[in-house]
Amino acid sequence: MHQAIKKVGITGGTHGNELTGVYLIHKFQANPALVKRTSFETLCMHMNVGAIEQCTRYVDKDLNRTFTLKALEDYTLTEYEDSLSKVINQQIGPKGSDTPAVDLVIDLHTTTSDMGLSICVSTQDPFTWQAIAYVQEQIPELHIFRWNGDTEDASFVSSIPPHGITIEVGPIPQGVLRADTFFGTERVVQAILDYVELHNQGKAIQYTEADIYDHVELIDYPRNAQGEITAMLHPSLQDNGYAKIEKGDPLFVTLEGKDICYEGEEPRHILFANEAAYYEKHFSMCLTDKKTISL
Amino acid sequence: MHQAIKKVGITGGTHGNELTGVYLIHKFQANPALVKRTSFETLCMHMNVGAIEQCTRYVDKDLNRTFTLKALEDYTLTEYEDSLSKVINQQIGPKGSDTPAVDLVIDLHTTTSDMGLSICVSTQDPFTWQAIAYVQEQIPELHIFRWNGDTEDASFVSSIPPHGITIEVGPIPQGVLRADTFFGTERVVQAILDYVELHNQGKAIQYTEADIYDHVELIDYPRNAQGEITAMLHPSLQDNGYAKIEKGDPLFVTLEGKDICYEGEEPRHILFANEAAYYEKHFSMCLTDKKTISL
Repeated sequence: MHQAIKKVGITGGTHGNELTGVYLIHKFQANPALVKRTSFETLCMHMNVGAIEQCTRYVDKDLNRTFTLKALEDYTLTEYEDSLSKVINQQIGPKGSDTPAVDLVIDLHTTTSDMGLSICVSTQDPFTWQAIAYVQEQIPELHIFRWNGDTEDASFVSSIPPHGITIEVGPIPQGVLRADTFFGTERVVQAILDYVELHNQGKAIQYTEADIYDHVELIDYPRNAQGEITAMLHPSLQDNGYAKIEKGDPLFVTLEGKDICYEGEEPRHILFANEAAYYEKHFSMCLTDKKTISL
Repeated sequence: MHQAIKKVGITGGTHGNELTGVYLIHKFQANPALVKRTSFETLCMHMNVGAIEQCTRYVDKDLNRTFTLKALEDYTLTEYEDSLSKVINQQIGPKGSDTPAVDLVIDLHTTTSDMGLSICVSTQDPFTWQAIAYVQEQIPELHIFRWNGDTEDASFVSSIPPHGITIEVGPIPQGVLRADTFFGTERVVQAILDYVELHNQGKAIQYTEADIYDHVELIDYPRNAQGEITAMLHPSLQDNGYAKIEKGDPLFVTLEGKDICYEGEEPRHILFANEAAYYEKHFSMCLTDKKTISL
């Protein structure tokens, strides 16, 4: 655990229409002292430059799903993001290397969902979890979401170096800057950098547990035979991130105004409800378990 | 004033990522009785079908800026929306005709700005203003924005037939459905249809005034020499549509956290603050005068 972190990467614009990360990178590049500490170097970079240019999530495909080892080694894939991912892997990886260019990456995202300040994590790496526990202690309103969907061959930017954290902040529309989202995201970044400095100086304390929302299931919107959405997120769940749902609670309301209720036996907490980018992925929300885990 | 309205057009998806209109058209097409009245026909149609397909605002250019008489007559313009606008003009116009296919168009839009339920109007047509005054009486929280920016050769869908109303509802992200926005927009549509029916039956009363926000000036975000935005909408104005600003009030906050204040001598009310689609148009907000006008 006490191996020093030599280089931290802060990455923004992995999704080109999530402007918070794009502009935080602008800010950090113009003011490097803000992300400088004594014990490590910090690299700040824009990721999907083509998508940033046109203010879209991606050019051909979601960059943040292209970093599997399988895809990084597949030279038959030739869409824009397929090549870009290989270049980024050279810059902050390579993935799986013992001597990566960056030891820890902090990837900046936003969501149209009411996620508040949150960290999404899909690794079991102990250092990453210690950093997250520290940030939650510094920022008590921070929520932690553990994603277990693709741990075998993870596809996120955060999976490239040995240690990786994804920051998700919302609600904010795509293509928009908001001061609260911007400065809130910056607070989380600063807390992570503070932790790395403490760790490198041997001053970090050891955390033994963390409060998390644990991924259970992704569910789609109700759709008709043509694949068109026939119901919207229920108003009781809109702007109500992390809400607890129990059997019989309304989940959706049809275009005609009829409620559709949750049929599951287990109570769950909802995340990522009504995220714009997930309509095409056929996800309306993620159902999770709220729990305390041992670190 | 008592010439009957024979056909009303309800149009959605003029901007393909404003899903509220797209799905209201789905709903009305599946349930035509909802928009049927005894005295007129109703046509419901999707507008920018290419943009709806890819869930973007437009394919090549903003369709809602292509309906000038000049552009409609210019066959050297060959981008996607240049051709589409000519086809739509055949379907609900032609513009300037004494016998248009549609007498009144209701064009459905949303915004990421905190506009609530609002109507944008850029015509002096007395019938349109009577309809709007009726709707404001039925829905007191409705705001009316009078746009005077391009009255010489108007470019909006609402300018095609003799009578035209643009509904703008927000805040809502692009690419998202919200139940409150959806049903709120439908309420405004229904009130307009009710007015047309009253008018056709000779039962409409004559309104003599309306409370409006009158366009004065569009202002951009602060930018650096490279054209990059250097400041965001001030938190005091975010989620605060129609707020009154006076000299010295903060308008923006820089990425570094410094306030930038309003320097104008005249108090104004702000509209369309932080609309995603206006970043590329270099508009951060519209400054308006709140006033009561005679009809």
